[in-house]
Amino acid sequence: MSAELRVLAVAGLPEVSEGMRVGELIADAAELEAGDVIVISQKIVSKAEGQVRKLSAVLPSAEARRLAAVLGKEPALVELILSESAEVLRAERDVLIVETHHGLICANAGIDSSNLPDADTVCLLPEDSDASARRIRTEITTAMTAGSGMGLAGHSTSSSAKSHPRPAIAVVISDSFGRAWRLGQAEVAIGCAGLAPLDDWRGRR
Amino acid sequence: MSAELRVLAVAGLPEVSEGMRVGELIADAAELEAGDVIVISQKIVSKAEGQVRKLSAVLPSAEARRLAAVLGKEPALVELILSESAEVLRAERDVLIVETHHGLICANAGIDSSNLPDADTVCLLPEDSDASARRIRTEITTAMTAGSGMGLAGHSTSSSAKSHPRPAIAVVISDSFGRAWRLGQAEVAIGCAGLAPLDDWRGRR
Repeated sequence: MSAELRVLAVAGLPEVSEGMRVGELIADAAELEAGDVIVISQKIVSKAEGQVRKLSAVLPSAEARRLAAVLGKEPALVELILSESAEVLRAERDVLIVETHHGLICANAGIDSSNLPDADTVCLLPEDSDASARRIRTEITTAMTAGSGMGLAGHSTSSSAKSHPRPAIAVVISDSFGRAWRLGQAEVAIGCAGLAPLDDWRGRR
Repeated sequence: MSAELRVLAVAGLPEVSEGMRVGELIADAAELEAGDVIVISQKIVSKAEGQVRKLSAVLPSAEARRLAAVLGKEPALVELILSESAEVLRAERDVLIVETHHGLICANAGIDSSNLPDADTVCLLPEDSDASARRIRTEITTAMTAGSGMGLAGHSTSSSAKSHPRPAIAVVISDSFGRAWRLGQAEVAIGCAGLAPLDDWRGRR
């Protein structure tokens, strides 16, 4: 049994904007080791991928304007939420619960305006968070291998890591979701790379 | 900002049975410090509180027998689930989702048969997990104060801790719940003492 889990904050990251390589920024800012799982907030991944939208540049459809009036929301924001959604599950009193194109059930399709440098801008989720995690993982492992000479099989005990001579790190992209019937927010993994997201306990005692 | 979170397993606890004082067991087994949050699985709390039931000693009602036949479950287990539930929310194909008397929405009213020494026994949730957490917290703080001479205000910087000269530890009781539409299980806090379960971010930037 693993006797200890340590969770460390990565300090000193810059304000992230479109085109920045998040994996390289993290590899520069943190002292990473093989076996680490790097949890990244969705917001900086979306910013790096250009998933930020100016509300004033969005033209709301008639359906978005109708729904916005019912909900008391901005029509441009509702237009973006609908464009990111496969289905609207609930729409009443300022609450818009949808299933996104990714299959996530969440409020406002995961779109929000927090932690953005400009007013009038909102941030969408990454288009494919698993793909984002894979790309960031490659950036980090490349930087680790180049930067410190580590990770060439010796740091890992798994045979799969030996056939792929890279440091065995994993990446999780997480977002804050509300939970039905509950106050507060919980972090939810919306994408990952380098780990199996479920541990199969069927048949174990 | 706190720079690090450490999660440590408490090793060496005995098989817990009715009447044991879980807080004292933990204080004996772990080197606790002021500021620690002690997360305890529901199962040992329930065992200590005598919340284990023999299925063969349960007399199922007519309603439990009817529902058991529909679901393919044991009538005695269904009887226990119904007795722990305020409302049945879903009952179909081996799935019984209820709201418990505590207000928890979960499968089988949180009753299960895992990690129990005897076959034919199942374990209910604690009757009042917040009360359980408060009692265990008192046991732990008493043991810490008596055992090591620590905790007499000097280890804490908060003024409320100074007026109550006890080590500032918190207790969380957690259980594994499935999530609707998702595979796998997540740990859910079903009771706590010594901490505020929500951090109010309204109005903060």
